[in-house]
Amino acid sequence: MSTRHTIHDHQYHFGWDNSLKPILTVGSGETLELKCLDSGGGQITPQSTAKDVPNLDFSRVNPTLGPIAIDGAEPGDAIKVTLVDFKPCGWGWTANVPGFGLLADQFKEPAINIWKYDANTLAPAMFGPAKVPLKPFAGTIGLAMAEPGHHSVVPPRRVGGNLDIRDLAKGSELYLPVEVKGALFSLGDTHAAQGDGEVCGTAIESQLDVTVKLELVKNANLPYPRFRTPGPVTRHLDEKGYDVTTGIGSDLMEGAKAAVSGMVDLLSKRHNLAPVEAYMLCSVCGDLRISEIVDMPNWVVSFYFPRVVLE
Amino acid sequence: MSTRHTIHDHQYHFGWDNSLKPILTVGSGETLELKCLDSGGGQITPQSTAKDVPNLDFSRVNPTLGPIAIDGAEPGDAIKVTLVDFKPCGWGWTANVPGFGLLADQFKEPAINIWKYDANTLAPAMFGPAKVPLKPFAGTIGLAMAEPGHHSVVPPRRVGGNLDIRDLAKGSELYLPVEVKGALFSLGDTHAAQGDGEVCGTAIESQLDVTVKLELVKNANLPYPRFRTPGPVTRHLDEKGYDVTTGIGSDLMEGAKAAVSGMVDLLSKRHNLAPVEAYMLCSVCGDLRISEIVDMPNWVVSFYFPRVVLE
Repeated sequence: MSTRHTIHDHQYHFGWDNSLKPILTVGSGETLELKCLDSGGGQITPQSTAKDVPNLDFSRVNPTLGPIAIDGAEPGDAIKVTLVDFKPCGWGWTANVPGFGLLADQFKEPAINIWKYDANTLAPAMFGPAKVPLKPFAGTIGLAMAEPGHHSVVPPRRVGGNLDIRDLAKGSELYLPVEVKGALFSLGDTHAAQGDGEVCGTAIESQLDVTVKLELVKNANLPYPRFRTPGPVTRHLDEKGYDVTTGIGSDLMEGAKAAVSGMVDLLSKRHNLAPVEAYMLCSVCGDLRISEIVDMPNWVVSFYFPRVVLE
Repeated sequence: MSTRHTIHDHQYHFGWDNSLKPILTVGSGETLELKCLDSGGGQITPQSTAKDVPNLDFSRVNPTLGPIAIDGAEPGDAIKVTLVDFKPCGWGWTANVPGFGLLADQFKEPAINIWKYDANTLAPAMFGPAKVPLKPFAGTIGLAMAEPGHHSVVPPRRVGGNLDIRDLAKGSELYLPVEVKGALFSLGDTHAAQGDGEVCGTAIESQLDVTVKLELVKNANLPYPRFRTPGPVTRHLDEKGYDVTTGIGSDLMEGAKAAVSGMVDLLSKRHNLAPVEAYMLCSVCGDLRISEIVDMPNWVVSFYFPRVVLE
């Protein structure tokens, strides 16, 4: 029995549906190499411009490779996904898609940046005066939901899916709760870099080959996904510290919007960037944190922008 | 004219009130050494036990030193506060106060931990099997509000106050919006360590001497406080990476509760800690982050616990 399988870039599906037939069944401990597409699934190319952004067909966004059944998996178990390796392709894109993103009310016009980067060295990618450190990862990693029918790929759920957690990078071990027999694992939406929050709605969307090991953990009874990182998660970008803006009030979402809006304003004025450029830059390398969530009735949400990017 | 002033531990006030008479007026660029009290203001001692926690008089919590007027400051300006130095005292406390904290519904009984630490080396502080790295900072740094009357010290506001941002540590530069003539600066609620979120409601509450430089920035027109750190902010604890739990759904507050509750469960089972001990440990060294805030309608809040603390 082979313990390493290749999943090709045409073996994808759109959205989640537990009636989809598995393309493969694997045993616990087997390894997959997934030849992922980016979230545009070919709709965005290195020649794309802002004019192409409104034409994005959301029903064909985020093709995920799979589903792959894990032998013996049953509801109540967990699938441990070890993120073994990522091979990036050398280009990517970040867009402001009207109606999508944390500051959609403020940024109504489409915009796009096409990134070129060195897939071997993974040296920081350039964007005007900015040098953005890269850390490839998979945005969408999930299992099928128990609930029948077709479900949009956009929201993450208890079974994972479009988690967009930037630390699901090389060496991390993710545990996903199983809701259906066979678990039905899928993966896609690969990114070359993203900050916590993915605030403009897109990361550096980039095709990657992803290698994962899947293991079955019986009776894990997880409420939500959890993961473990093998080491530090921000040392590729924290060397010079951070500029930080805050939003303070009784609503975390409004606090997050205020913090990001404050950073867009700061960066665009200080570095002579168009506001939408600063916004996209925030999405690919800045982090949303909750500094304080107990001092009733006001909470502090902070947006951390790594100084190394623009200094 | 002296450019360095000492503010003594009896020169405090409770809450914010712009009619309080300044204890001192300083010029831009002058330095203060503040002999701060901890947030208990003497109500908690190294001999305190859980029985003392419900007796905490909240009207006498969080004495802040000040107010100090800055010559020439007017509404629309900002005060730049450079956090020059922190001298810790060697002991501190963390409590679960019934009715207070992110998981107040789950943790209804009072609890306290008294910490001893080496004020010179700042070596990690011990708590059962846990070694908690220290990074002293001031939880409350603020200016008087324009709104007249007396205002509780507990919530932070646009002018700062009880921000509880753990990176307002040595070398950081904080900018606070001025709302009243003279700005009326106060500082207190010093901590030896805290994670992002301060999830149980208290940090390692600890008396510190704090040195700050105050500078006036005319016409800054800041919407909210912002700050800059001089370097990395998590390298004292990120060496071994993190265990991370998540909460996923359409409400950030519920997501935060689920993520922290998941971590309390994980740590208490794995390390044989009482749940309330795991909860207090989360508060002093774990971080709440917003991993994803754009994949409508579900957001991902993550709680990062540094593995170095328990491995």
